Amino acid sequence: MTDRTLALTERLLRLKSTTPDDAGCQDEMAERLAPLGFKLEKMRFGDVDNLWARRGNRGPVLCFAGHTDVVPTGPLGQWHSNPFEPTHRDGLLYGRGAADMKASLAAFVTAIEDFVAEYPEHNGSIALLITSDEEGSAVHGTVKVIEALRQRGEAIDYCIVGEPTSAEVFGDTIKNGRRGSLSGHLLIQGIQGHIAYPHLAENPIHLAAPALAELAAIRWDEGNAFFPPTTWQISNIHAGTGATNVIPGELDLKFNFRFSTASTVEGLKQQVHDTLDRHGLRYQLDWTLHGKPYLTLPGALSDAISASIESVCGARPELSTTGGTSDGRFIAEWCPQVVEFGPINATIHKLNECVAIDDLPKLSAIYKGVMERLLC
Amino acid sequence: MTDRTLALTERLLRLKSTTPDDAGCQDEMAERLAPLGFKLEKMRFGDVDNLWARRGNRGPVLCFAGHTDVVPTGPLGQWHSNPFEPTHRDGLLYGRGAADMKASLAAFVTAIEDFVAEYPEHNGSIALLITSDEEGSAVHGTVKVIEALRQRGEAIDYCIVGEPTSAEVFGDTIKNGRRGSLSGHLLIQGIQGHIAYPHLAENPIHLAAPALAELAAIRWDEGNAFFPPTTWQISNIHAGTGATNVIPGELDLKFNFRFSTASTVEGLKQQVHDTLDRHGLRYQLDWTLHGKPYLTLPGALSDAISASIESVCGARPELSTTGGTSDGRFIAEWCPQVVEFGPINATIHKLNECVAIDDLPKLSAIYKGVMERLLC
Ligand SMILES: [Zn+2]
Ligand SMILES: [Zn+2]
Repeated sequence: MTDRTLALTERLLRLKSTTPDDAGCQDEMAERLAPLGFKLEKMRFGDVDNLWARRGNRGPVLCFAGHTDVVPTGPLGQWHSNPFEPTHRDGLLYGRGAADMKASLAAFVTAIEDFVAEYPEHNGSIALLITSDEEGSAVHGTVKVIEALRQRGEAIDYCIVGEPTSAEVFGDTIKNGRRGSLSGHLLIQGIQGHIAYPHLAENPIHLAAPALAELAAIRWDEGNAFFPPTTWQISNIHAGTGATNVIPGELDLKFNFRFSTASTVEGLKQQVHDTLDRHGLRYQLDWTLHGKPYLTLPGALSDAISASIESVCGARPELSTTGGTSDGRFIAEWCPQVVEFGPINATIHKLNECVAIDDLPKLSAIYKGVMERLLC
Repeated sequence: MTDRTLALTERLLRLKSTTPDDAGCQDEMAERLAPLGFKLEKMRFGDVDNLWARRGNRGPVLCFAGHTDVVPTGPLGQWHSNPFEPTHRDGLLYGRGAADMKASLAAFVTAIEDFVAEYPEHNGSIALLITSDEEGSAVHGTVKVIEALRQRGEAIDYCIVGEPTSAEVFGDTIKNGRRGSLSGHLLIQGIQGHIAYPHLAENPIHLAAPALAELAAIRWDEGNAFFPPTTWQISNIHAGTGATNVIPGELDLKFNFRFSTASTVEGLKQQVHDTLDRHGLRYQLDWTLHGKPYLTLPGALSDAISASIESVCGARPELSTTGGTSDGRFIAEWCPQVVEFGPINATIHKLNECVAIDDLPKLSAIYKGVMERLLC
């Protein structure tokens, strides 16, 4: 008999939910939750489908959060099998979204089914917050749902985000926070001219180089007990039209901070401006804050999931705050304890994304174990 | 009666000789030279027309050198008149190639006509070396003609290149040399990676910045009595695909030296390599030498043209070696004295290129005066 988590993962993988299209995934989940006594609310904002589901009216509220949308497949010819046709090879289940994060969505559902069957009168409430826009702009997704819930005074106590957090071995890592992400688009002005007459021009590459060298060498902070030090990286640099006899008039540069709670947004911005100003540069700098850092200190939620992982996998996970951003950053502004846990993330956003078939029932058992520890 | 230099300039301007197309310009000149007793040789190499013309068998040989090709017009809509339809406005003759350098070609011809009429038994020889590929790759132009002449043992003593050298006032500047031009295409290697995991990547922009800052600050030489200091400029810098979450794997950079006789090609290359190596960069660097610097010390030729300019314009010109490269760099490897002189260069390679109509007979008179001083 096919494992129920595997079967539901496969049903979800067949739905082409390229971001921000839900493609029916939430209906598939809702159909399974309705008979369990969940109150279901579809919340559509813009072109994004969101689902809020809740079983019970009391606290504490334990919420499972995730996204049905997947990143684009990339070149289809380089997939060994159709990314929307779930395929087994060597104990792995292949498909776009297998690890990020349809396996977790399926495991949410089957864990809840098992838990409710066993404990129909559990304490508190179980909730699900599902969006179809986490991989895209994320404007009409989790943020909007939280806004709506907040406005009507609805709160949650614990949230597990199903992002794939395992690194080498299934169950080795949970995220109890994420670094913040702050981007800058910097235009450094020079004066265009002919390369034979540099005294009539000002080369913005030459003007910028000492400042960039200085910025690249700055140690922004030392991190702290939960975060590695803040990092600053230039992702793009462009100047010149290809003509080899022209000094360009402008240097265009994009950079990004991944920052810990040891630094502040204003402090980082100030230090960049100070450096550019000290070098006398004429520039325009536009900032985008993608997310502030969040941190859930070790406590009831991280203890519950760590114990549940240990009982299923045989070892306690490591707490980590590395990696990219997730919707956890939005949820953490509303919910005091947010932890992320899911399958191995080695293949996410890549060709031939996959998840280990053996890990699927374990993932479901771990989520069920959290409910047992917090709602019984 | 229309000035003969103006009339011939206009005939040449009507021929659309966009580089490397001669479009009949050399035939137009040859027709005028043949009756004067010139021996004419067409030398076609690849898709380039060249003309070698000589009157007389004795030394010294005074050669007039120039090109019939013009740079592309750029957007036609931004020309106030058709660039291939010579047009007079406010004492100026407009057309692509008016200043660079069809006026000089016409003045060569009319000066020679006048001189030969007056001194049919002049000393030495008069020669013309005309190419249709100076503005393009210049591979099949002047270089090839010189190679052919050298192989048969033909030499010249003096060469006047008709490039537009006047800066503010007609006759204010002659070039008695040009700086060399040396380009580099530099690829700096890093390791591509996700911006959230910089410890797994190596950002080539960050690695390069200190070395670039150092290179931009180097004083390569102090120049000398005839040359300004050597300059180094980056014309293009590119890294990153546009994605803002990826640390690029490679930095692509183009730079150019304009160098004086105070530096050597090998010395400049060595200093760049030393700097890159000292910063521990992994890189690939491809060099292109566009031309070595050349210098003609003040002597018979510069004296003759300076005196001729003074007698026509009322003031002696300044000797200069600034600006871009010209075919003078090739001729100087074969001819001991090379000097460049022509009209005001403010509009060359630009929209609405023009030359002052009043300067055309003066230009012809100046070229004639050089022949009088060197061949009589
Ligand atoms: Zn995800
Ligand atoms: Zn020219």
